[in-house]
Amino acid sequence: LVRRAVTRVLTPGTVLEDQLLVGRRNNYLAALVQAGECWGLAFADISTGEFQVTQLESAEALVQELLRLQPAEVLLSGDAPDPLVLLRPGEASSERPECLPSQFCYTLRPRRYFELDEARRLLMETFGVRSLEGFGCENLPLAVRAAGGLVQHLLETQRGVSIPLEGIRTYTLSQYLILDHQTRRNLELTQTVRDGAQYGSLLWALDRTRTVMGGRALRRWLLQPLLDTRAIGRRQDSVAELYDEGLLRERLQRILESVYDLERLAGRCGSGTANARDLVALGESLLKLPALAEAVAASTSPYLKALQSIPVELERLGEKLRRTLVDTPPLILTEGGLIRAGVHPELEGMRGQLIEDRDWLVDLEARERARTGIQTLKVGFNKAFGYYLSISRGKAEKAPPEYLRKQTLTNEERYITPELKERETRILNAQQQTNQLEYDIFNILRQEAGRHVSALRQVARRVAALDALAGLAEVAVYHDYCRPVLGEGREVHIEAGRHPVIEQAIPAGFFVPNDARMGAEAEPDLIILTGPNMSGKSSFIRQVALIQLLAQVGAFVPARGAVLGVADRIFTRVGAVDDLATGQSTFMVEMTETANILNHATPRSLVLLDEIGRGTATFDGLAIAWAVAEYLASHIRCRTIFATHYHELNELASVVSGVANYQVTVQELADRIVFLHRVTPGGADRSYGIEVGRLAGLPPSVVARARTVLAQVEQHSQIAVGLRDSNGSASESAAG
Amino acid sequence: LVRRAVTRVLTPGTVLEDQLLVGRRNNYLAALVQAGECWGLAFADISTGEFQVTQLESAEALVQELLRLQPAEVLLSGDAPDPLVLLRPGEASSERPECLPSQFCYTLRPRRYFELDEARRLLMETFGVRSLEGFGCENLPLAVRAAGGLVQHLLETQRGVSIPLEGIRTYTLSQYLILDHQTRRNLELTQTVRDGAQYGSLLWALDRTRTVMGGRALRRWLLQPLLDTRAIGRRQDSVAELYDEGLLRERLQRILESVYDLERLAGRCGSGTANARDLVALGESLLKLPALAEAVAASTSPYLKALQSIPVELERLGEKLRRTLVDTPPLILTEGGLIRAGVHPELEGMRGQLIEDRDWLVDLEARERARTGIQTLKVGFNKAFGYYLSISRGKAEKAPPEYLRKQTLTNEERYITPELKERETRILNAQQQTNQLEYDIFNILRQEAGRHVSALRQVARRVAALDALAGLAEVAVYHDYCRPVLGEGREVHIEAGRHPVIEQAIPAGFFVPNDARMGAEAEPDLIILTGPNMSGKSSFIRQVALIQLLAQVGAFVPARGAVLGVADRIFTRVGAVDDLATGQSTFMVEMTETANILNHATPRSLVLLDEIGRGTATFDGLAIAWAVAEYLASHIRCRTIFATHYHELNELASVVSGVANYQVTVQELADRIVFLHRVTPGGADRSYGIEVGRLAGLPPSVVARARTVLAQVEQHSQIAVGLRDSNGSASESAAG
Repeated sequence: LVRRAVTRVLTPGTVLEDQLLVGRRNNYLAALVQAGECWGLAFADISTGEFQVTQLESAEALVQELLRLQPAEVLLSGDAPDPLVLLRPGEASSERPECLPSQFCYTLRPRRYFELDEARRLLMETFGVRSLEGFGCENLPLAVRAAGGLVQHLLETQRGVSIPLEGIRTYTLSQYLILDHQTRRNLELTQTVRDGAQYGSLLWALDRTRTVMGGRALRRWLLQPLLDTRAIGRRQDSVAELYDEGLLRERLQRILESVYDLERLAGRCGSGTANARDLVALGESLLKLPALAEAVAASTSPYLKALQSIPVELERLGEKLRRTLVDTPPLILTEGGLIRAGVHPELEGMRGQLIEDRDWLVDLEARERARTGIQTLKVGFNKAFGYYLSISRGKAEKAPPEYLRKQTLTNEERYITPELKERETRILNAQQQTNQLEYDIFNILRQEAGRHVSALRQVARRVAALDALAGLAEVAVYHDYCRPVLGEGREVHIEAGRHPVIEQAIPAGFFVPNDARMGAEAEPDLIILTGPNMSGKSSFIRQVALIQLLAQVGAFVPARGAVLGVADRIFTRVGAVDDLATGQSTFMVEMTETANILNHATPRSLVLLDEIGRGTATFDGLAIAWAVAEYLASHIRCRTIFATHYHELNELASVVSGVANYQVTVQELADRIVFLHRVTPGGADRSYGIEVGRLAGLPPSVVARARTVLAQVEQHSQIAVGLRDSNGSASESAAG
Repeated sequence: LVRRAVTRVLTPGTVLEDQLLVGRRNNYLAALVQAGECWGLAFADISTGEFQVTQLESAEALVQELLRLQPAEVLLSGDAPDPLVLLRPGEASSERPECLPSQFCYTLRPRRYFELDEARRLLMETFGVRSLEGFGCENLPLAVRAAGGLVQHLLETQRGVSIPLEGIRTYTLSQYLILDHQTRRNLELTQTVRDGAQYGSLLWALDRTRTVMGGRALRRWLLQPLLDTRAIGRRQDSVAELYDEGLLRERLQRILESVYDLERLAGRCGSGTANARDLVALGESLLKLPALAEAVAASTSPYLKALQSIPVELERLGEKLRRTLVDTPPLILTEGGLIRAGVHPELEGMRGQLIEDRDWLVDLEARERARTGIQTLKVGFNKAFGYYLSISRGKAEKAPPEYLRKQTLTNEERYITPELKERETRILNAQQQTNQLEYDIFNILRQEAGRHVSALRQVARRVAALDALAGLAEVAVYHDYCRPVLGEGREVHIEAGRHPVIEQAIPAGFFVPNDARMGAEAEPDLIILTGPNMSGKSSFIRQVALIQLLAQVGAFVPARGAVLGVADRIFTRVGAVDDLATGQSTFMVEMTETANILNHATPRSLVLLDEIGRGTATFDGLAIAWAVAEYLASHIRCRTIFATHYHELNELASVVSGVANYQVTVQELADRIVFLHRVTPGGADRSYGIEVGRLAGLPPSVVARARTVLAQVEQHSQIAVGLRDSNGSASESAAG
């Protein structure tokens, strides 16, 4: 990696340089401490000052948090001889506990850095407090130890730079909607499963932020939705105001377009690594704040009101920065050109002298020609010996005696005079001094900015939140979203819901909206969803999950109306891929994920299952699917949508209460089928798989033969007799 | 992006800088020309000089080639107003034909650059030839147009740098084993499906190369296996020699460890962008070549013999580089310190004078103290006015008259003398001149190296190939691979074959080898492979595909013995993921891939199918699987392994000739099942899906209920009666 100065060591988690960071993502440094089953986790983004700690009850929960954070570097205590041993992704090491994923960078630090007393002392000293009570982690020893190890690492790598962190925030997983890694992945929150691109993800569909810090905020929110209806309501109120007041929103977004990354600029001022362009960008951004404040002066929603008053010292700082620094300063700080004319009397004086001396040099040629009468005399300059007087060879004998010959060329002689050299020296001297003075002025300015780092960060966070909310409001307006009603109940009532990503990926108006009703009195908890291939079963269940998630983010949702009970967790189980290197078969992955759901879901959870049992033989798969659905409906009683090709599962509704059958409908024409993408009550009994094969280009003889075989098999089949015997209502939706 | 000089524009495909390139991957720039259904494709790696062209009959074939090459940039003709319009990955544009994947960077260039006459003229001029016949593309107008557009782009972006390409190589797809993108992906040739990492891929398991260019060669080979048995044989012979001669291989690999990236170093010399460290690395590497040549002096295999004679001019160049340049030159070329002492008389003279003048300065203090009698006199230096003589304030009146006062400080006076200033100037002057001379010497050296670029590249390619082959031999020795016998027949005879990746990922000796026999007289063409979940069906079919592929790369294979007919194409169809953004359901993807196989496979193809029909309802899926298997076995008659959970497919063997049933066996104990991972004749009739669910952690009540449901369903089931009626032999492998 790069070294900025011998005093600072860059590691993946301690980067501050803009060109090494991704604007719209946080760059987290994490630290871990293990004690039995429990773990302490601390993480920080030193470019934005965020610093959080928590304790976790299991390695599994820890891994889920790491997968959410995607830290650039994870600190572990270890006995490695070298003080900075980096395990690259995928590298094997006995120092890394087996339960930790190998995809991150791990750095081993001495065990003593993670000792409780040392860690507590260091944290209290760093943040200037006499107890950690105020941070809420006084009684969380593992969290404190992890935080101490993290700060110790920063002290060592950031020598000479102040620790760029705000105070510690203690959180617990129970404050947030739990999304495990599989679910974040399956719902394609920030990247698609197919190629890992942001294009096609939920973030892609919703990110209309104008600043990179707004982008980072939105990303964090999508990965960590809320549980507290009041906190959700505060975001909703703000989105609603920005939704209703279109002109206000547009005005704010225009202002935001010229606000730079205040969070990270503040960080670089605090650590003393900001350059002059950073300060100019900071100044420019601060000078936009009064306009923001003015725009939201009459606003009533919490996030907008938070920006109504801008600390006056920040406004003054912005003015001072603009007044002092030139518009486009050079990147190098020690060669002058930073400070505007007219702002510093001493600098003005020095610059004036410099100009005078330069003018003297400029006029010298004319003066000396007149004095000596040599018309070919010239003043020249070269790098090796500075200014000189040049006389052509023929006139050289006319040179006055005070001219000292320096160099003889073919056609000319070059001279200096003590007076010339004195002026020259003075110029060089003065230049150096003005450069130094400019650098000093800059440094004082940077330190002044650094003293405001807390206020800057607070404003930055508010601006970032406003930006994210304005983007959500913009999407809501352009794609006709509604404000969901969130409550403490268990209902999922979605009227004319749409899939936020697919809707944007296909031509406008082509998406077929669908309702969902479950969880309330006299409504099912579990829906068995059948329907042909390609009819949109997977899209429907994902759409329900995304609407629930967006609602808990505080966003508006793609629906005509929605009333939703807050969920404690969203589980998904959809198609998986083999993991040959670790020896997990597809079906094993499927069963492991299913077991995870059955073991952790509560009545408040929302569970979305797509094709459980597909990875094994027909009867096995059907039996497992049946038993799983029955367990969810009668034992856990969580809200579940179970999409399946096993039409036999439709029998469950007649056996277990709280189960309903829905199907995605198609219209059969003479020569083809039309997908209506409409979810209606009732169970499907055909999957039209052979029609899909025909559409996909299977040779006609194969299609014909498959039809024959199907007829033959159906004729002899009695698969569901055992189940159907106890239920007479399932044959009403039958078709040939 | 970065600009190196105003004359050079960097675009993703025209990078030469080492820090922007990935060592073990080629960085391709591609150019496309379309005419109706046909396409011309040219691609080049300007860091290695490779330049190839071809024509393709369909957009589909073109896309497959692009996906193989993964170009950093693709040039297209377009009418964009700006001469350099870059479409970033995922960006929508009407300028990009719809059939082209959006994941690459596209640059639009003016249409006239792709006109035939202009392109032909430019190529002939660039390569100094009078016809393109020698390159084999005289009659391939689309290829020529693409190549012309590519070279025109280089001329514009690399101004002032010579076009860093070797001559054109024309190829056709029919020279190579065809692997479509899905198959490369499914077989995890260079990255895993799960997380896109190299860890766990075939390349990971086989890459024991010591140089980055060897790594690039191996990667190219794995992605493009051969068809010509003689070409395969040449590689095999070389691997065999390196396999048999372990000491020779180790000696070669030790030498290779200190050979740098000759290919790219040659490229930077040719383009004049090499720095002094590059030349030192080049010299070091060239000086290793005689040792390589000596080591292989007695060798008999083609790739080793190719290194027996090293062009004498390269050896001389290496010596000259080492003789001339210091061991660790600075990165900046204009500040001296590049050239060793004693190699250039003029430089020596100048350096001598410089030392003399510096000594004079060093001695000045003593001389002047003695001359003036002022014991406090000192010689000083500052940046503003150079060397000066300093006398303490008290002694200042003693200063001799020739001292010119420059500066008055509190405690001292500072003076210069004309003599002092003259020496000083001479030193600065001389320093500048020696720096310039060193730079000139360096430049001549670089140009000399640049003149050998073709010879350098040829040697580099040979060294890279040797490195790749030595690595393959090393793997073969350590993991006990054998040399496969390749023939023109259709047999796949593998004795005790293993999966090259899984074998290395689990403890040594734990992998269970398996035979495969098909394709020859009295042997099946199509194998129906059944067996429980997690028993290793997927591993087995991938293992057969990888052994066939490795054999056609010219590598040894993980088996006790193998006799293999050359395949024209390997097809795979395994688990897929939904692509919601483009609206493709899993089952549609599955059917599209299956249709592709049925429409393109030939009797010489090898087809591996994993779970066809899983994405739809039971009866549909079974019918499709049956019809597909029947079509492959009776219509196409290619070699196929069909892994399935539809035990009913075992009936096919009794109906269609050339079909055989195999199963992966398990042993049932009282309380659990033991996976034997052994492939034996016969069909399985149980999948043990519920046992897998139990192992994965499904709640016991769910497992018990699933067992009950299974029994109920089985009791009433008659699924396969229609098929079984015509075949009495299927019940012999039954179990409870």
